[in-house]
Amino acid sequence: MREVAVIGLGQTPVGEHWESSLRILGSEATYLALEDAGTGLPDALLVGNMLSGLSCGQENLGALIADYAGIRGVPAAKIEAGCASGAAALHQGYIMVAGGMAETVVVCGVEKMTETSQPDTTVALAAAADAENEVAHGLSFVGLNALLMQRYLYEYGYQRADFANFAVTAHRNAVNNPAAMFRRAITPEAFMKAKLIAEPVGLLDSAGIADGAAALVLAPLDLARSLGKPLVRIAASAAATDALAIHDRADILELRAARISSLNAYAQAGIQPEDIDFFELHDAFTIMSALSLEANGFAERGQGVRLAMEEAISLSGRIPIATMGGLKARGHPVGATGTYQALEAVTQLRGEAGANQIPGCVLGMTQNIGGSGANIITHIFERVS
Amino acid sequence: MREVAVIGLGQTPVGEHWESSLRILGSEATYLALEDAGTGLPDALLVGNMLSGLSCGQENLGALIADYAGIRGVPAAKIEAGCASGAAALHQGYIMVAGGMAETVVVCGVEKMTETSQPDTTVALAAAADAENEVAHGLSFVGLNALLMQRYLYEYGYQRADFANFAVTAHRNAVNNPAAMFRRAITPEAFMKAKLIAEPVGLLDSAGIADGAAALVLAPLDLARSLGKPLVRIAASAAATDALAIHDRADILELRAARISSLNAYAQAGIQPEDIDFFELHDAFTIMSALSLEANGFAERGQGVRLAMEEAISLSGRIPIATMGGLKARGHPVGATGTYQALEAVTQLRGEAGANQIPGCVLGMTQNIGGSGANIITHIFERVS
Repeated sequence: MREVAVIGLGQTPVGEHWESSLRILGSEATYLALEDAGTGLPDALLVGNMLSGLSCGQENLGALIADYAGIRGVPAAKIEAGCASGAAALHQGYIMVAGGMAETVVVCGVEKMTETSQPDTTVALAAAADAENEVAHGLSFVGLNALLMQRYLYEYGYQRADFANFAVTAHRNAVNNPAAMFRRAITPEAFMKAKLIAEPVGLLDSAGIADGAAALVLAPLDLARSLGKPLVRIAASAAATDALAIHDRADILELRAARISSLNAYAQAGIQPEDIDFFELHDAFTIMSALSLEANGFAERGQGVRLAMEEAISLSGRIPIATMGGLKARGHPVGATGTYQALEAVTQLRGEAGANQIPGCVLGMTQNIGGSGANIITHIFERVS
Repeated sequence: MREVAVIGLGQTPVGEHWESSLRILGSEATYLALEDAGTGLPDALLVGNMLSGLSCGQENLGALIADYAGIRGVPAAKIEAGCASGAAALHQGYIMVAGGMAETVVVCGVEKMTETSQPDTTVALAAAADAENEVAHGLSFVGLNALLMQRYLYEYGYQRADFANFAVTAHRNAVNNPAAMFRRAITPEAFMKAKLIAEPVGLLDSAGIADGAAALVLAPLDLARSLGKPLVRIAASAAATDALAIHDRADILELRAARISSLNAYAQAGIQPEDIDFFELHDAFTIMSALSLEANGFAERGQGVRLAMEEAISLSGRIPIATMGGLKARGHPVGATGTYQALEAVTQLRGEAGANQIPGCVLGMTQNIGGSGANIITHIFERVS
């Protein structure tokens, strides 16, 4: 098994791209990443995407994005794992390079959500939940997260306000990210005053609907060394699944797939959770942040939300999260989120995160969640000197 | 790089499964393949599927099929490459085992086409073509293939009737395949009398709409040897892409992605086209069969249809195709087709093809096409003594 490095990064800003279609966003990020790498034609393209069929009536994205990015002919496919599609594509790309089956692979997560052929994007997104046993009864993703959050409040005795700092922190960090969708700070008061979407989930508990694309070029570490750039390697890449429907899980307040994938990731990297310098978690809803911090060993059960209350999640805290705005404020173009997280982690480890730089960081973790916890993929990135 | 063997096979019959949903079909084939392998929990599941979002409002198939097949927890993802999704999943599975990144991987192609939330399945299928530049102008897959076939007739001076033997051969072979959708022979006269769908493409030029799932378990050849079963290895796995829209291609009568992927496959296996004992090609339309035979070195340009006219494609011919019925008569549940082809090739090479057995076959090739030639994946399977 070879060590794998990230040698190229490319992204579009996250936002409402009324002027750019799916293929334009995806090919722009892919092209920029290849240009950043400067290593020419890759051996393969993997596209992380969830909604293109339902939103745009467009599948076969591998061939399409390859062509529009100027690499027509290369092996290419789309990888889908709900909102974890971006990290699922990265996981497959890592496997290709680590196993010696490819030298360079470009991985592009892309999503176009603001235009959709469905009744609305919420309907399309529900395809990541159990269509027969959840969605058929009227549950959307907001509804599913409301059930989880309500149970969390009931079980552990918290209030809605205790979750405010997850959103406040994400928005504060997004201000300094030129690619973020919401570059404005919010107050805890604004969080509390925001409209409830599905009680107890409010508007500011939730990541917005967005368009965007982010891409990375992977290569063996030895090749990366010869390029004379800041070196960042993928120290771990681990995926795990759980039941799709939350009522089928052994314990709805445990993200078991997160626990399995992060335990595997820690073992691969040979580290412990306390070695992680920052954690780009999947804050699609504030309740997911709390559950993620618990499942990955950063907090005891029922204590994840305390990390927000105690400001341990800020840039100077014990475990900084959402350092460039997270899903909440950078934006959550679902199939692209996993590659945005990875791009931001590499940016931090390269020391190029500007005002949001975590000083001296060496190990960054990203975690992408598909469905309400059904498919969870963890990556650990490490700065190599 | 390790040699990779196929150690387990599972399939559902192809047909109109009104009583079984997508998850039931996919999990049944996956379970059967794992049972056939007998090696316990696999390291990963890859699901080949194109239409589940558009047809069933269901994505996140990796987690869903893993759970229903009884392997909840394993890393899993869906791979999409239009109608080549099954082979695209197999390609990724091959990469995982060949590169030493997994010991056993189960690959399941599954599609549910008879029920759809779209206006009709033709609309959903069109997502594998270029939505903005082909579908927006009213082109469906039948229309695209009609354009290609019309050009072929015009360019080389053939008649519709010259294509009859592609369909006649497929139907004849399907009679002996218990899993085939259309187990009845047809005559050249019936082919000619069949209703034209989009001139010159008639009903019997075209593969039908179907449901089904087929799965394979992959493992290192060394592990396979210890199981004491007939040994079949994957001698080559190669993918290539082309422009999605046919008007963007350098030459619409050349399947360039087929040429690139088969040349790579021949090189990997160290063989020539004439060494191939049978070829499971992508006969979604008879014109695709003709173009495939040409692009892969079995016929000169403009001569592919002659192989049908001269009966070279029959079970005892020079290059048998569609040996278990092909897409035309076994049926074409699009995202599952690539794994059905692979399963049938392994069945032939195990000597278990019954009345359709190619005597003494050693090398079988499969080729799965996504879109009208945009994403093409070639596999070569070899019996190992």
